[in-house]
Amino acid sequence: MQKGDNKLFREKWIKFIHQLQDDICNALESADGKAKFIEDAWKREEGGGGITRVITNGNIFEKGGVNTSAVSGKVTDLMRSQLKISGDKWFACGLSLVLHPVNPYVPTVHCNYRMFELYDDGNNVTDRWFGGGTDLTPYYLFEEDAKHFHHTYKNTCDQFDAVFYKEFKAECDKYFANTHRNSERRGIGGIFYDQQRPDEKKDLAFWMNFGMGCGNAFIPSYIPIIEKRKNILYGEKEKHWQEIRRGRYVEFNLIHDRGTIFGLKTNGRTESILMSLPPTVKFEYNYQPVPGSEEDKLLQVCLKPREWV
Amino acid sequence: MQKGDNKLFREKWIKFIHQLQDDICNALESADGKAKFIEDAWKREEGGGGITRVITNGNIFEKGGVNTSAVSGKVTDLMRSQLKISGDKWFACGLSLVLHPVNPYVPTVHCNYRMFELYDDGNNVTDRWFGGGTDLTPYYLFEEDAKHFHHTYKNTCDQFDAVFYKEFKAECDKYFANTHRNSERRGIGGIFYDQQRPDEKKDLAFWMNFGMGCGNAFIPSYIPIIEKRKNILYGEKEKHWQEIRRGRYVEFNLIHDRGTIFGLKTNGRTESILMSLPPTVKFEYNYQPVPGSEEDKLLQVCLKPREWV
Repeated sequence: MQKGDNKLFREKWIKFIHQLQDDICNALESADGKAKFIEDAWKREEGGGGITRVITNGNIFEKGGVNTSAVSGKVTDLMRSQLKISGDKWFACGLSLVLHPVNPYVPTVHCNYRMFELYDDGNNVTDRWFGGGTDLTPYYLFEEDAKHFHHTYKNTCDQFDAVFYKEFKAECDKYFANTHRNSERRGIGGIFYDQQRPDEKKDLAFWMNFGMGCGNAFIPSYIPIIEKRKNILYGEKEKHWQEIRRGRYVEFNLIHDRGTIFGLKTNGRTESILMSLPPTVKFEYNYQPVPGSEEDKLLQVCLKPREWV
Repeated sequence: MQKGDNKLFREKWIKFIHQLQDDICNALESADGKAKFIEDAWKREEGGGGITRVITNGNIFEKGGVNTSAVSGKVTDLMRSQLKISGDKWFACGLSLVLHPVNPYVPTVHCNYRMFELYDDGNNVTDRWFGGGTDLTPYYLFEEDAKHFHHTYKNTCDQFDAVFYKEFKAECDKYFANTHRNSERRGIGGIFYDQQRPDEKKDLAFWMNFGMGCGNAFIPSYIPIIEKRKNILYGEKEKHWQEIRRGRYVEFNLIHDRGTIFGLKTNGRTESILMSLPPTVKFEYNYQPVPGSEEDKLLQVCLKPREWV
């Protein structure tokens, strides 16, 4: 591939990421009906920058962020050892979002789609991969919502490869696990893929299109669930459970999430990375829901992931 | 040293740790005046066990734990790589406490004193070290409290070596830093020491006595501060700031604290390890206290540690 092609592909991905950010923010503001995103544009000293958009105290969203970044830098020793990569310079561009609703009957959601490139000292691309995924973290289980969410991503996956959904669903269940809590998952999963490198069968355009397809699936996967659950009445009991489960979300993100830890240890923009943390959280010693309760039903499905399609 | 001696020293340390747990729990219950510790005794499959004591919803303490453990196991590859140790079996015994008061004018406190031993396959001790420390996390700065706290530990240190306080105070400031937030400390420090191995000048008895001296300094270092601050009136503003700062405590413990991460990744008892997490926490995007405010004064002293004695 020629250098010129590389640049065109890169520009195409960057443009898509920013368009997706606009589309998602518009859809979320519209669903919320009250709160608006505030924007912080930032520059990274070593190269590039990002656009962080945060929404708080809405009708639907208690706290959330929809962030993009297109950043570059020199490959450091930490990257060499942790990412097992070689090369002189790197470039990364992606979108990352986390939404924490007020109402415990509306699930938290996360998605992230990214492209990573490595260059030699002559600016030739020496390696490149795509990664991403979307996962849902309900506080109460509505099977029809889990099915809708998974169906949406299965439909997208199936347009690209019939094995993708099964494979990436399993990866998601494996990844979003609090291994220090008997591998309790943080929710009911979705899809997750990483380090997908273009080859002769699935080229650069294929993986880029797949990321775009998944990114575009976010709105139809999530917004209908908000609409269905946003008016369910809840009380202190449900809010308490939500805040306990948010504690598990914090544990996963700070102890296990590779992106979070890597970002924080490599001079990433801390406030943008940690927008993923929930607004209010409770940590109680040895908290266990009543066996057979609605809270316990959710917990059981986190401990033993199910097939939803 | 003979095997018999080793056993005697080990038994002496274990006895001390349990006595200290009783003494501290009694002093804390007495200071609280309402809540009592609940106890969970647990066994570790590979050997040994612990006594977890948790206090909640007190007059003074919103949540806290005073834990001891005396555990042993086989040296794993993870231990070899992370702790850079060799040997076949290990033994560890220590006390660890964290207290999160209700009133934002009463500081959070942590302390931990521990002994670690390694054995060859003939049960001979091949390596041994002591570690520990106590650090204070106020939400509002009272200089006289910081001085009292540090003076208490300086007095203890000075009984053992004139350089200890200066050295271990600096270690504490270095260790309890959120490096992802410009090395903002989680509080006003105290003392911290690790991997202190007995040698000809400072033998096993010396380090054991030092750990005991520091452990026994906990009650006089902390209880008087509770008494001074427990009746100060506070409102939503102060509680909000406390919960924001508790977020920083969570970040430190889950991202940086070696003991927490190591425990969680080596099949430690999760609920006992995570008793350190605060009961209620807030995470807000890019929260900054008003410059010059009482909240900001605390923040500044976390960013630039001061000398208190």
